Amino acid sequence: MAIELTALETPALLLDEARMHANITRLRDRLPAPGPFLRPHVKTAKCLEVALAMSGGVPGPITVSTLREADRFAQAGFRDIVYAVGISPNKLTHAMALLASGVQLSVILDSVEAASALTAFMQGRPERLDVLIEIDTDGHRGGIAPAAPELLVVADALRSPSVRLQGVLTHAGESYNCRSTGALEAMAEQERAGAVLAAQRLRAAGYPAPVVSIGSTPTALTARDLSGVTEVRAGVFVFFDLVMAGVGVCTPHDIALSVLTSVIGHQRDKGVTLCDAGWMALSRDRGTASQPVDQGYGLVCDAQGRVLPDFIVTAVNQEHGSIAHRNGDPGRYLDVPVGTMLRILPNHACATGAQHEGYQVLGQDGTVTARWPRFGGW
Amino acid sequence: MAIELTALETPALLLDEARMHANITRLRDRLPAPGPFLRPHVKTAKCLEVALAMSGGVPGPITVSTLREADRFAQAGFRDIVYAVGISPNKLTHAMALLASGVQLSVILDSVEAASALTAFMQGRPERLDVLIEIDTDGHRGGIAPAAPELLVVADALRSPSVRLQGVLTHAGESYNCRSTGALEAMAEQERAGAVLAAQRLRAAGYPAPVVSIGSTPTALTARDLSGVTEVRAGVFVFFDLVMAGVGVCTPHDIALSVLTSVIGHQRDKGVTLCDAGWMALSRDRGTASQPVDQGYGLVCDAQGRVLPDFIVTAVNQEHGSIAHRNGDPGRYLDVPVGTMLRILPNHACATGAQHEGYQVLGQDGTVTARWPRFGGW
Repeated sequence: MAIELTALETPALLLDEARMHANITRLRDRLPAPGPFLRPHVKTAKCLEVALAMSGGVPGPITVSTLREADRFAQAGFRDIVYAVGISPNKLTHAMALLASGVQLSVILDSVEAASALTAFMQGRPERLDVLIEIDTDGHRGGIAPAAPELLVVADALRSPSVRLQGVLTHAGESYNCRSTGALEAMAEQERAGAVLAAQRLRAAGYPAPVVSIGSTPTALTARDLSGVTEVRAGVFVFFDLVMAGVGVCTPHDIALSVLTSVIGHQRDKGVTLCDAGWMALSRDRGTASQPVDQGYGLVCDAQGRVLPDFIVTAVNQEHGSIAHRNGDPGRYLDVPVGTMLRILPNHACATGAQHEGYQVLGQDGTVTARWPRFGGW
Repeated sequence: MAIELTALETPALLLDEARMHANITRLRDRLPAPGPFLRPHVKTAKCLEVALAMSGGVPGPITVSTLREADRFAQAGFRDIVYAVGISPNKLTHAMALLASGVQLSVILDSVEAASALTAFMQGRPERLDVLIEIDTDGHRGGIAPAAPELLVVADALRSPSVRLQGVLTHAGESYNCRSTGALEAMAEQERAGAVLAAQRLRAAGYPAPVVSIGSTPTALTARDLSGVTEVRAGVFVFFDLVMAGVGVCTPHDIALSVLTSVIGHQRDKGVTLCDAGWMALSRDRGTASQPVDQGYGLVCDAQGRVLPDFIVTAVNQEHGSIAHRNGDPGRYLDVPVGTMLRILPNHACATGAQHEGYQVLGQDGTVTARWPRFGGW
């Protein structure tokens, strides 16, 4: 299979395979060898081929954001799975089905309420579910503060023959708001130290807590010390995106994902070129809006992937994108004929990917060499 | 089938069937009987059952935003289809396949360039493709101004035995920014008058131009005069959403679509309740951000659909939503147990729907009576 881009109907999601492999190698090379230290988050790609590439060609430990992901990857041989969203009671029956199929599933929670609901559900069951307590190391979202007394109360509430408290998990989502290497390194250390402290407190109280799971793409790529950590989770590193470029952990040239689009018209008096990539193809993600460089709904490249400096998607409707110069000057509009193909680099790879059913995989010569399916849902 | 909501895994997309039918009746009752005056836009629902309900139970004329929609609905018997996004040359082969299958397909364009590309492609072909010229009646996006000389130049460029210029099409997307009934009525009249003027100019120049197609949900629901119009397109009216409530053409009680979610934790010191509906379930649409009442990522209801006043989703990650009081007061946070089910009303029904694979259809007693699939892609 070697299909020219011009033979594709637009919009289409392109994946530059060489860039993807380079991104994977970059992160893997930072982590201590040997062993399953990297537990990649498969929510970004939701694609078997990408997950295998992240795991070095054979199924390894993974992180998922939905039980649907757990189902699909388990069927493909991935048996060591952390479901890294606080478990709600209505998902426990589904979790039991995964255990019954032989998956080593870990769930997370951060409250006595959730722990009690879990042990009540597990009461008398023959299965054993692994649990990690979610730790809040950055005030970003969920979790228990590393030094909070509640940590040990939750651990106590998890005492059950059907539950195995395996340790702690944290995610320094606040690292997305860091603006310098120094800030990223400090955030990475804060994430590490908080998780290690929480695990130490559990161990001091008599819980084994062998697992100390940390990770976000920015901290995974900048941490200078991983002492006490047993695994690193990251997801978006595999494709990168404009938000990560804005954080400073990649450049636009590293971004492996783009949306191929066609010019469908012009509004020359406004300096606007219309294309067929709207929010359905790009997503509504505006993650760069709060960064120093606002990339609109995406940065425009030519069909070969070369950035057209300062042309961004300034507005989207469902199937329309408006391309203009970032300074809004109508005199500098993108004057290319109807039918011209362009590529749009995404703000947020997870969100843009989620709008598509699969990847058109680009080989080194720029032709499409494969199509890899992806899935959604819960 | 009568499944209790509590038996569903969350997040899940709910469709209140009675509200949907009431919304359809409301628009249909406004339009002149008899005849196929309503050409509903199926991009909002992308669902056969919903399209049939909009068409009165049997396939009727429809509007689509992708050729995938045309394929799927054609297979289900919908044969009169307007593809209402400017056609790009790489979609013409696909369009020919639709014609070959017996579909009466109309495409739209707004430039000499696109018209010339189309006639060049059609040159010597046995098929005949219907074309509508896109008219810009509100400065919102694409199209030719009703009085612009270019209109007749484009019409001339469409002269071909394989092309039939059928008339004009416009979409008053700017109506979404209207803030009063008077403004909506004025916008509806502007949309009507512009489209009719463009058609009259074509006819005066010798083109038949039988079709005058207008429509947006706000103008369709407020227009006081439809003289000269032959069809009305609208889509979001079938479900409504918070943006439409903000425009003033519905109330939250009319919104037929919601996302069922479960509480998974709390950050009590911040006044935040975490749920399992993130942007993957709600979309990243922030359409109410520019309206007088900003609904965040959605308005929170209890599991039965009763609005919990002033609780909104203030932040989203991929699979996490943060619920808080809209005034940000931590003292007024939503104090409900982990596992509590809630519903989130969407900002934008098209965008939220697009994140899901199907609808859990609610009957009058609040149980799930059916599951209707939906599709995406191009």
